[in-house]
Amino acid sequence: MRKIVDQCAEAKSTLGALLSLHSSEKNAILLAMATAIERDESDILAANQDDILQAEADGLTAALIDRLTLTPSRVQAMADGLRAIAALRDPVGEVVDGWVQPNGLKLSKVRVPLGVIGIIYEARPNVTADAVGLCLKTGNAVVLRGSSSTYRSNRAIVDSLDSAIPPGLPPGMIQLLEDTSRAGVLELVQMKQHLSLVIPRGGATLIQTVVNNATVPSIETGIGNCHIFVDQSANFLWATNIIVNAKVQRPSVCNSCETVLVHRAIAAQFLAQLAGALVDNKVEIRGCAETCRIVSKAIPAQDSDWDTEYLDLILAVRVVDSLDDAITHIGAHGTLHSEAIISNDHAAITQFTTQVDAAAVLVNASTRFVDGGEFGFGAEMGISTQKLHARGPMGLAELTTTKYIVLGAGHTR
Amino acid sequence: MRKIVDQCAEAKSTLGALLSLHSSEKNAILLAMATAIERDESDILAANQDDILQAEADGLTAALIDRLTLTPSRVQAMADGLRAIAALRDPVGEVVDGWVQPNGLKLSKVRVPLGVIGIIYEARPNVTADAVGLCLKTGNAVVLRGSSSTYRSNRAIVDSLDSAIPPGLPPGMIQLLEDTSRAGVLELVQMKQHLSLVIPRGGATLIQTVVNNATVPSIETGIGNCHIFVDQSANFLWATNIIVNAKVQRPSVCNSCETVLVHRAIAAQFLAQLAGALVDNKVEIRGCAETCRIVSKAIPAQDSDWDTEYLDLILAVRVVDSLDDAITHIGAHGTLHSEAIISNDHAAITQFTTQVDAAAVLVNASTRFVDGGEFGFGAEMGISTQKLHARGPMGLAELTTTKYIVLGAGHTR
Repeated sequence: MRKIVDQCAEAKSTLGALLSLHSSEKNAILLAMATAIERDESDILAANQDDILQAEADGLTAALIDRLTLTPSRVQAMADGLRAIAALRDPVGEVVDGWVQPNGLKLSKVRVPLGVIGIIYEARPNVTADAVGLCLKTGNAVVLRGSSSTYRSNRAIVDSLDSAIPPGLPPGMIQLLEDTSRAGVLELVQMKQHLSLVIPRGGATLIQTVVNNATVPSIETGIGNCHIFVDQSANFLWATNIIVNAKVQRPSVCNSCETVLVHRAIAAQFLAQLAGALVDNKVEIRGCAETCRIVSKAIPAQDSDWDTEYLDLILAVRVVDSLDDAITHIGAHGTLHSEAIISNDHAAITQFTTQVDAAAVLVNASTRFVDGGEFGFGAEMGISTQKLHARGPMGLAELTTTKYIVLGAGHTR
Repeated sequence: MRKIVDQCAEAKSTLGALLSLHSSEKNAILLAMATAIERDESDILAANQDDILQAEADGLTAALIDRLTLTPSRVQAMADGLRAIAALRDPVGEVVDGWVQPNGLKLSKVRVPLGVIGIIYEARPNVTADAVGLCLKTGNAVVLRGSSSTYRSNRAIVDSLDSAIPPGLPPGMIQLLEDTSRAGVLELVQMKQHLSLVIPRGGATLIQTVVNNATVPSIETGIGNCHIFVDQSANFLWATNIIVNAKVQRPSVCNSCETVLVHRAIAAQFLAQLAGALVDNKVEIRGCAETCRIVSKAIPAQDSDWDTEYLDLILAVRVVDSLDDAITHIGAHGTLHSEAIISNDHAAITQFTTQVDAAAVLVNASTRFVDGGEFGFGAEMGISTQKLHARGPMGLAELTTTKYIVLGAGHTR
């Protein structure tokens, strides 16, 4: 088994070659990778089958096994994703800013690759192809630390992607860590001499582990305790449709809604309507005392419900006295991901969008729209819930940094 | 003595009030702070005198005592700095990007304050006023962790600044930590529930301590092992002037030059000229074997010299065989701060600016220009040598983050 430090060092050694690739060369490799994935579909599915059998033997839950399972359409989606990345504009080389100082010094601020990016992810093997595509496009080398339960699948995918790298370019720009131990995560996030960034994509425990132990800069992604506040001026039909959509369309993702806050002035009338729609969609309601008085099917909420990311067909509902109280509740329980207001009151909307601290604040729209695809980025490397470097859906630009180039003619101070 | 956690919590509690301040109100406070500093000059100098006496009694070095000493002109510079910050454009509220999705969803990406920023700094008390000014301007609360040796000076400055905060606004937006213990630094950098960012401004040991222990995101600043490469096509006069300027003008700062690399083709002729200018300026030369053969006054360099940030009138000099070797040397020994080439060869300049990984790459200009003031930012919160969030001199924009505002009309997925 190769050592983590050796794999990280090999990734770093390819940065010069990556930097010398033009966009057209990177795009040609991405398209060749897409073709390779299609060609190798049966090998990838066979490796995945081995992972599934092992997972069943190890007694993994059905939900986990579903997440690690590949199908022909999921493999096709990987290839399509690589082609979509090839079609995007390359951010590397973009001149972000530029000016001339009074002394004649010419400054430009240019987008450049970050370096080596470590991605730590859980079961889903499709992340492997996505992460490689995004990193290659932006001139970064990538160190992939997938879970041990999907090692065979990830290996087959990386072998296929590697086969598309032309002679003369080192395939070492993609490193799938052979060491998938838990201790290996700690080692990886302290590989400061080789890595520029680590991105954990997974549950709260993984993210906490990375934050607590990383010396490499990291970006927190994907924890979303998202709220929708229904103001007294809300269009009830919009509010109902948006809440059902934000809860039901895909409950397992971070931008789904977990708590609805309802203004007291309309609580009785609106909650009666909302409850019917939720029950029709098999959503369990955990309500505050007032909600339980109005909605007979509601289960009394515990304090912990306000902080729970259910990722399931469960919704916490609380009646609040005012917009201020809604904002205070979100400040106390939100995770800085996505927060929505349903309202037709301009002053309320202005106050909510100004005072609520989150990567995205939505007005009369479902929290499910906070997503790289829905924002038009064409590809996404997770949704950042921290404030530094990248906030909200991360596209290609967020995988780059900048460099100042300063041109003088013998200038001294 | 107040607990660090309580001071951080109080800082956070003022964020709502800070967010509600318009630029004109923030600027009025900054101008009032400048006036207060001028008014309180004698109190500040008296407090500083107490710090100096204590430092002398504690046996601090003359260099350290010089760094913590305030003079009337240094106090005036603090007031002038606050007025300069007031005159800058407020980045908060700037719409960085905006578009409409095909489904009619309107997106805008807006600049907002980061939250509470922790600044950890060593002796210089003038950082206190600068940091408060920059944070107030950008709507951030600030937690200041100055060194214990300047606590009285810092306290007098913060009291003066606090006096300019009008009634109705909490002075808690400025927190000078009463606990200046070493253990307190570790506590501060893990105050994730209250702080959005910590910026260490100091030596390598401080920065290492922060990086190794922080759970709060941090920005590394100020370590600069900066190189100047003299290409075979260099204008010798420019090269000599630039090297002398980058070494001599202010040797103690991070953007001064520590190592000069000289192309072998011109080494004999150029080094003879350079050595004279360096010796005239009392610069000690530590040279490679080839340099020592050419320059009789050069002292043989040890391997460790290539990694030393002298911050003094000492310069390492190495003859290299080629541009490639210069780039390799910089890759092995640079600190991603500022790197310069002196050349008139377009291909060499292009290769150097493309392949050298640094916050700033300079062509025919002194590394001393890599500075917020010289870049025209009007104010600076250190020079970032990391790649995430901010790279190079940090102005006001680097003290903000962004938020997406998404406007719909009942939109669901």
